[in-house]
Amino acid sequence: MKKIFLTIACMAAGFSAMAQQNLFISQDIESAVVDENNCVTFRFIAPKAVKVQIAGDFVSKPADEQHVAGMVGAGYVDMVEKDGVWTYTSDPLPFVFFCFIFLFFGVSSLDSIISFVYRDFATTSIVFLVGNGKADLYKVTDVPHGQLTSMWYHSDGIGKDRRLNVYTPAEYNANPKKKYPVLYLLHGSGGDENEWVIFGRACQIADNLIASGKADPMIIVMTNGHAEMQAAPGESSLGYYKPFHFSDPQNKFVTYFPTEIVPFIDKNFRTIAKKDSRAIAGLSMGGGHSFNISKNNPTMFGYVGLFSAAASIPGARNTWSPSGVPQREVSPEEIAKFDSEMKTFFASKPKLYYIGCGNEDFLFGNVTNMRKYLDDKGYNYFYRETSGGHVWINWRIYLSEFLPMLFK
Amino acid sequence: MKKIFLTIACMAAGFSAMAQQNLFISQDIESAVVDENNCVTFRFIAPKAVKVQIAGDFVSKPADEQHVAGMVGAGYVDMVEKDGVWTYTSDPLPFVFFCFIFLFFGVSSLDSIISFVYRDFATTSIVFLVGNGKADLYKVTDVPHGQLTSMWYHSDGIGKDRRLNVYTPAEYNANPKKKYPVLYLLHGSGGDENEWVIFGRACQIADNLIASGKADPMIIVMTNGHAEMQAAPGESSLGYYKPFHFSDPQNKFVTYFPTEIVPFIDKNFRTIAKKDSRAIAGLSMGGGHSFNISKNNPTMFGYVGLFSAAASIPGARNTWSPSGVPQREVSPEEIAKFDSEMKTFFASKPKLYYIGCGNEDFLFGNVTNMRKYLDDKGYNYFYRETSGGHVWINWRIYLSEFLPMLFK
Repeated sequence: MKKIFLTIACMAAGFSAMAQQNLFISQDIESAVVDENNCVTFRFIAPKAVKVQIAGDFVSKPADEQHVAGMVGAGYVDMVEKDGVWTYTSDPLPFVFFCFIFLFFGVSSLDSIISFVYRDFATTSIVFLVGNGKADLYKVTDVPHGQLTSMWYHSDGIGKDRRLNVYTPAEYNANPKKKYPVLYLLHGSGGDENEWVIFGRACQIADNLIASGKADPMIIVMTNGHAEMQAAPGESSLGYYKPFHFSDPQNKFVTYFPTEIVPFIDKNFRTIAKKDSRAIAGLSMGGGHSFNISKNNPTMFGYVGLFSAAASIPGARNTWSPSGVPQREVSPEEIAKFDSEMKTFFASKPKLYYIGCGNEDFLFGNVTNMRKYLDDKGYNYFYRETSGGHVWINWRIYLSEFLPMLFK
Repeated sequence: MKKIFLTIACMAAGFSAMAQQNLFISQDIESAVVDENNCVTFRFIAPKAVKVQIAGDFVSKPADEQHVAGMVGAGYVDMVEKDGVWTYTSDPLPFVFFCFIFLFFGVSSLDSIISFVYRDFATTSIVFLVGNGKADLYKVTDVPHGQLTSMWYHSDGIGKDRRLNVYTPAEYNANPKKKYPVLYLLHGSGGDENEWVIFGRACQIADNLIASGKADPMIIVMTNGHAEMQAAPGESSLGYYKPFHFSDPQNKFVTYFPTEIVPFIDKNFRTIAKKDSRAIAGLSMGGGHSFNISKNNPTMFGYVGLFSAAASIPGARNTWSPSGVPQREVSPEEIAKFDSEMKTFFASKPKLYYIGCGNEDFLFGNVTNMRKYLDDKGYNYFYRETSGGHVWINWRIYLSEFLPMLFK
């Protein structure tokens, strides 16, 4: 600790004459360091604290609901203090990308000496990546990199200019005549057009799978699925607004997606504008969007991916409603309409209907309902069940498995 | 406070059955709220704290060098607690974009219930934007938006694939035959290819100035000026690495910029590849880069912008070295070479040589030296002196003034 303070004091003295200078001190500590055994040591400087804990999705212990951590369900552990620096070293962690926050005097906190954070809803957490195995796909490696373009389209239906991100594969610029298949990749209710880019590592996964020949070069379009939103915080006319729980009672995103977003992409990129060269996938709310958009437009998508999808079979008991809340009444007409739409969709012979879910996911029961429905009707699908809950660990696995199955 | 805890407790109870679910709670509080008078109220939930302060670039009081805030020179003020929520309301603030952190039990901290942060070196701060006046240029407004492309080029000289960001104006895609002038916009030593995009609001400033007809449509290229870096944290093969104080003793970035980056842009975008349609500008270290790259390549750039530039006149006393550190000895030959290069550069008749600096900037003495040199030699330049120090408040002002002066 003395060493750290000394370093800072020296630097501060060197800059002492500078009023209002944009020079930040880099403290000689890192919040999360992964060692060669994939054990992670977390550090937090808090000489005056009597207790510091760390909450994160790498801790298997279920959360105590009393704390104000922002991260529901993540486990937490105590850190140990020495000379003012609190540390915790994990057991060897599996291969993935994790996030965490510090719990400190009852406050869910980030230290400011961090280099990378990400936001979901209005909670920001620190992220780190443990390599090896599957997580190598999530890393920037020495392969040709695609490019990512952030751009805007106008939605007449929603009545806004709206932002989206488009990944084009590394070879795209070098092949000015070649056309490419397109995956539309949709986010969950806590996210926005940046979620798959940052939390999902979609560009890195695509770069690595394409470079190894496992996935075909493709365009990936990451839209903003909240009709009430224009763009992510900082990129919106609302400024650095605090995200809220959005609603879309008129289902405008699902309604206008096929007539506004798909034609916009087909106009501005060299796409193969055909069903069997078009895929749609999403997680949670975005899985629900993918389910409905593909069902409502049976000739549009040859490939569908439902990752922990918030999608329901009418009349089946939803599992995400708190117990005691009555299910919505569904009329026989509504069920017949749904059956008819599903029949039409599967009659169009989708090349792939991918369903992935963790067996501790709060939507697992819903997914089970959907599988039972598809089984009863004799509709083909691919099913991947993983352990764990409604978490990014699973959605990155599903995307990594889904991309190589596309456009074959 | 009770209300907040109740809200959280209810939500937590609703989700209580979900182990490891990716559902973050949005607390019913915002870290920084700007009212109609441009007063900002900051809030931080810390029921167990005995003291919470806020440090930020909006506080005029000079910093106490003893604290460990990471933000050197920013002032700080005490917050006041009521029912566990600490608040501070500022006086009306001027028009700009600010950043802050909480000081809490000696720890420089971010609360995790924030929607936007930005990093400089390895310090992350929370940002917010006070509108009106000049800051309206920094907002996303209802005008056509350009697009931003993140892509990679290969540097043989540096020996790395390296990332850069390219802004193309809103009209670019609709005019497939039209060619555009290019501004190369370089960051400071704490930044990377994302700094002008996020902290600098360069895309918003360009969108707004172009839409109003004040600036010509142009391409803006934001490179990574650290030869040791491949890309920003999270976008690099180093993963979520902690940035350090980079060095470039062989001056590789300056050396390879004209032969690698400029041709890469001219190849991949519809540029007007001529001196009078090419500008280079940067802040601090990037100002030094702009100074040297333009001087060393006198036929390449018709417009140069030096914003608080870390650039020196050989033999003049540098003001950023701590007092007592001897200046480097400069030989008469080195001075003669510099004089010759400057003479050649100004003989090529740059259309604009823009110098901006704050009168409290620690580089103000250096800039004064440079102006004296240019005055003595009779070289024309434009000079903008602002109040304040080495801060983003100034660099956004300079960019907002510089763009309308380009390519006329």
